[in-house]
Parts: sequence; C-alpha cells; structure tokens
Amino acid sequence: MRLLLIHSDHIEYETRKKTKVAEENVVPKDALDEALTVFCAVESVDEENIEDAVRQAVDEIVATAGQLGTTNIMIYPYAHLSADLASPEAAVSALRGIEDALARKGGFVVKRAPFGWYKAFSISCKGHPLSELSRTIVPGEGAAAEKKE
Amino acid sequence: MRLLLIHSDHIEYETRKKTKVAEENVVPKDALDEALTVFCAVESVDEENIEDAVRQAVDEIVATAGQLGTTNIMIYPYAHLSADLASPEAAVSALRGIEDALARKGGFVVKRAPFGWYKAFSISCKGHPLSELSRTIVPGEGAAAEKKE
Ligand SMILES: [Mg+2]
Ligand SMILES: [Mg+2]
Repeated sequence: MRLLLIHSDHIEYETRKKTKVAEENVVPKDALDEALTVFCAVESVDEENIEDAVRQAVDEIVATAGQLGTTNIMIYPYAHLSADLASPEAAVSALRGIEDALARKGGFVVKRAPFGWYKAFSISCKGHPLSELSRTIVPGEGAAAEKKE
Repeated sequence: MRLLLIHSDHIEYETRKKTKVAEENVVPKDALDEALTVFCAVESVDEENIEDAVRQAVDEIVATAGQLGTTNIMIYPYAHLSADLASPEAAVSALRGIEDALARKGGFVVKRAPFGWYKAFSISCKGHPLSELSRTIVPGEGAAAEKKE
C-alpha cells in the first residue's frame, strides 16, 4: 500500500462520473478543513493480508495525525501512486477497513472519498516540512517499509 | 520518470523553506489558471539518458495539453511519485530541460515550481475522465512504458 499524507488547510471533492469499478452508496461531495488528507493506493501485495495492511496504515495515519495535531482525516483513493494495484474489491475492502478502524478509535472526524469515480477535487497543502509524507506499507513487515519526508 | 498530469482550474505554490538540495535563483511564488499541472519525479534510470527521458516527457506533455486544449503548463517536482529517485543534480537538469524544450516550442505558457524547497501549494482538478493521467517514462524505450487513466 502506498500512502501520501498531506497536511491540508482544505480538501474537497465532488463525484463527476462513474468508472466501471465505481463503489455504490457513496457520499457524492464532501470537504474538510485543517485535515490530514491520506491519498491511498491499495496494491496487489496487500491482498496477501489485507487486515495487516489496514492495521499498519491506521498506525501510520494515527501517528502522523498526532504529530501534526489534527483530528480531521480525509481518506482519498489514489490509483496513480502505484503501478501494481490490488483488485477493486480488495481496494474498497481496505479503504473501508481504514475508515472504520479510525472511526472506532474515537476522537477523529473521518471522511472517505468514493472509490472508482472520476472526481473533481481541490486541496491546499500547508507547506511546512512535515506537510507532505509518503509511506510504503507491505503486509507482514513490522513497520512501514519506506519513509520519505 | 514518473509523471502525474492534472488538468487544473488553478494551481499555485509558494516556497516556504529550503531543503539541503534546494535549487537557487528560483521563482518563489507563482500560479496558473486553466493549466496542465505536471507533477514529475525524475528517477535513477533517467540518468542513463536524460536527454531521451526529457524528450519523451515533453512529447507526453505536448500530446496531453493538445488533447485537453490547454496551453498553460506548470511543471512541479514531486519526489513522492517514486521510490527510486535520480540525484538532485540530474533531477534539476531534467526539469529545466523539460521547461526549456516546452518554451522553445512556442505557444505555451510554461512555469516551473522550484526543486528542493518545502512549498505550500493549492490545486483544483477538473474531474473529467482525462483530468488525471499518469505516465512512466523509461529512457531508450520508444513510448511511455505505462499509461494509466
Ligand atoms: Mg515535502
Ligand atoms: Mg482519474
């Protein structure tokens, strides 16, 4: 799984058109201020252990949100972060898993942009040294495999 | 080289802080409306033939701008698109090469965000089916190695 975490003054999206793999029953339009935006590509390797990939992703997101002092989290599917994607079913399962686990922790406002839709979006990145981070997660490994700041 | 091409209503950036590899003599703040924003990660493989990587990138950018009917281009260095980056010197050389080649073609407004700076930025993506495209370029190969839309 590849994560790109952006400390955002503002993030908003609006669905425009379905792709063939569009998720149903979605929130068509939403926004968050003062948020950690988590662009996420679920990869084929994650299918070996979706639960562990989700657990590691949630740990990374919670740790980063803590560092930044934000409790607003926007999960945003972003296929362009990887050349080796999971199946759409696995991707939706992982994205929902991350959303649900964060919500269960309490103390966070968690929103998730829908998978498989063309979406207009707008984001502003704060620009401080920790405002753009990327992580590569491999299920079964103890910690995030690669960190880049 | 990895490219992420975003058809943008608006893109703007502002430098905030240098990293150790910050480019000098930069434009510290700039913006473009109705632009093709080209997020670009120059990769180690590009160092084998920077000129060819630049040529292929320029071809892709020109073709995409033509499809979208835009003549405004913002080149934006984005290390988070790759786990195997070129040296900073090679990256700056490639980014400048792309900027210069596009400018020489005429008919484009070309801007380039500086390499090696922490930057605040804001972007809005139009959301139509061709408004987000990614490309992987490998020097010496005839065409972009991978296309994702
Ligand atoms: Mg950064
Ligand atoms: Mg798209």
